[in-house]
Amino acid sequence: MIGKPLLAALGAKPRFDVPILIGQHYWPDWQRYELAARDIFARRFYTSQRFAGPLVVELQHRIENFLGVKHAVAIRNATTGLMITTYTLGLSGKVIVPSWTHISTIQALLWAKCSPTFCDIEPTSQQLSLSSLRSRLEERDVAAILGVHLWGSALPVAELEELANEYSVALYYDAAHAFGCKVGERSIGSFGRAEIFSFHTANVVSTGEGGCITTNDDALAAKFIAMRGDEMAATGVALQSATARMSELQAAVGIMMLDDFEHHRRRNQDLHRHYQACLSGVAGIRILEPCGVTLSNFQSLTVVVDSSQFGLSRDQLLAVLRAENVLASKQFDPPAHLLKGPASGADDGERLKNTNSAALSTLQLPLGADVSSEDIDVICEIIRQAHGCSESIKMNPAHVAV
Amino acid sequence: MIGKPLLAALGAKPRFDVPILIGQHYWPDWQRYELAARDIFARRFYTSQRFAGPLVVELQHRIENFLGVKHAVAIRNATTGLMITTYTLGLSGKVIVPSWTHISTIQALLWAKCSPTFCDIEPTSQQLSLSSLRSRLEERDVAAILGVHLWGSALPVAELEELANEYSVALYYDAAHAFGCKVGERSIGSFGRAEIFSFHTANVVSTGEGGCITTNDDALAAKFIAMRGDEMAATGVALQSATARMSELQAAVGIMMLDDFEHHRRRNQDLHRHYQACLSGVAGIRILEPCGVTLSNFQSLTVVVDSSQFGLSRDQLLAVLRAENVLASKQFDPPAHLLKGPASGADDGERLKNTNSAALSTLQLPLGADVSSEDIDVICEIIRQAHGCSESIKMNPAHVAV
Repeated sequence: MIGKPLLAALGAKPRFDVPILIGQHYWPDWQRYELAARDIFARRFYTSQRFAGPLVVELQHRIENFLGVKHAVAIRNATTGLMITTYTLGLSGKVIVPSWTHISTIQALLWAKCSPTFCDIEPTSQQLSLSSLRSRLEERDVAAILGVHLWGSALPVAELEELANEYSVALYYDAAHAFGCKVGERSIGSFGRAEIFSFHTANVVSTGEGGCITTNDDALAAKFIAMRGDEMAATGVALQSATARMSELQAAVGIMMLDDFEHHRRRNQDLHRHYQACLSGVAGIRILEPCGVTLSNFQSLTVVVDSSQFGLSRDQLLAVLRAENVLASKQFDPPAHLLKGPASGADDGERLKNTNSAALSTLQLPLGADVSSEDIDVICEIIRQAHGCSESIKMNPAHVAV
Repeated sequence: MIGKPLLAALGAKPRFDVPILIGQHYWPDWQRYELAARDIFARRFYTSQRFAGPLVVELQHRIENFLGVKHAVAIRNATTGLMITTYTLGLSGKVIVPSWTHISTIQALLWAKCSPTFCDIEPTSQQLSLSSLRSRLEERDVAAILGVHLWGSALPVAELEELANEYSVALYYDAAHAFGCKVGERSIGSFGRAEIFSFHTANVVSTGEGGCITTNDDALAAKFIAMRGDEMAATGVALQSATARMSELQAAVGIMMLDDFEHHRRRNQDLHRHYQACLSGVAGIRILEPCGVTLSNFQSLTVVVDSSQFGLSRDQLLAVLRAENVLASKQFDPPAHLLKGPASGADDGERLKNTNSAALSTLQLPLGADVSSEDIDVICEIIRQAHGCSESIKMNPAHVAV
């Protein structure tokens, strides 16, 4: 190669001084936070005492109205929400779940003493595959389907409900990525027996750490509240609840994030479009578009790398980006079925072939509060240059260690 | 009864306008909090992203130094800490634990797929009984002893270690109530394989919701960090971790609470002494003194009511106090072995007779940030008057419904 190198992977100075992380990381401004926090300090009520705090209750009402669902139960995080829901639904034995999900989906099933049984995904959308699900249901002895709405998309909820009815199994959803997404006029949160949201800062609505369970079932909601561990509610309930309270300061942030949702959603959508425009025509790079939804939160920018067209593998591109301080990330690496542990399913190679393929080719790029459209210009330029210099990069392995 | 009634239970106006709750409820003042929170906002790092936040790391170091223990792993709450520890120690099967503990101790064992096997308590101290423990150990097939240091007291750690060695079982502690307590020169937190603290606002050191696991074992500590769910740490670990991160805002509060610990501890001790002075000589009322410790945090005021001497049962006294807006509380009601559920042990009546007796006679009175010594004067006066008017109170059941 002649002239000054373009890329840090080839010896240039990294394009970004400060690392750019994936994740939404939106947060209220200080002025609004101060107002709410001072009020909490004045009232000296910081978390649940013998009952949920007033801001937790307000957040729940706000979520119920926002999503058009009867009950929202604020909890400490989505993993615990999934544990609580699995336990409260009385599930034991096999729960069918995609292996292509954040590991915490699977962990929650294991804590709740269920066996994850993995189904595959569609090759294009990377969402749960109905045909793979059906063949897993045919194996019988299945207790439930745990659907996962990935990255601002929605699963085919009507078809899933039909399948659940046909096989008489429970259906519920990990909706960690799907706050504010709609299917027709209906918001995610009102499907299946219950849906579980994450309010980690990686997601569009955040309380720092946190989450909620939503359901239209009155009896289930009462059990979720008892399972959360409010002491008043715990009187007379069965032994196994969980300590899953949200604090008042977290709830205050959650309320502000709901106020800001549409602003952040539109910003995400604009940045998403910007990525699309900047990467269009780059051979071997495909951005996953939200699917199954009439409205998406656009909270993720997920890319599939076709190495034969792009010239570099996903891992090589990742190394190029990291060298520039763009902390892009593999998705679900490795997927759950390849992890050591009680749910290990290394024999699932053929059945989970789309999952295995996605695991080698999928990449998440930064999109959120800390990313401007100018940053995206630079990130996409890096990707274009990586494509153009793929041969040089492959000859310089020292710079591209992941 | 002649003249104006003295007590709300007899028709008088309640002594307190605002309910007085049990629990410590100490909290930093606004000025210090604002300084820390503004800094977090400026840095835009609110919780773990791909690694623990800087304030979480600082809190951990501060706890390690404070307690003189090699590792402190900050977590989201004590229940999760107990789950993680039980799982990480590789326990399965029976874990011996007192039934006389907060229900979350037992819940954590159940989530971690262990069977709680209940041992009794000493009648005077209400702490775990070594003789009852030994007879349970004799039943064999025991995986571990989970000791519980109750209410600012410490268990006989040397004897427990001997027993654990003799029967080759693991030993660890629920130290939710025991932050800052010492046995000789050594702090609670450094005994057994691990100890688990709660930083709920009920306890002397608070982060709103939160807790930590402490251990002197390097390998265990590394596993606890992976189990907490920091993504960087999770690479390559076994499948079942938990999502148990603490946020930066919580950690900031924890650091301030450590700064304030000795101040709050002394205040607790003064209030404890004040209760002792005000209730001395009231027949049938016994305050539990911290035992097994060279230093106590004095975070609880636990009272045993002898109804034959006092003239009212514990429940009747509780109703009298609640009528006055003193939200005193039964302890562990009902104790775990009497709850419905997989650990149900209703046949344990004889083996757990001290637990059953404690469950009928024990009461927690308010002691913490929201209680002044003047409040304690009034609370103790109510108790003295209840003693004096016991016959009238028993004839007025309408006022004393619990």
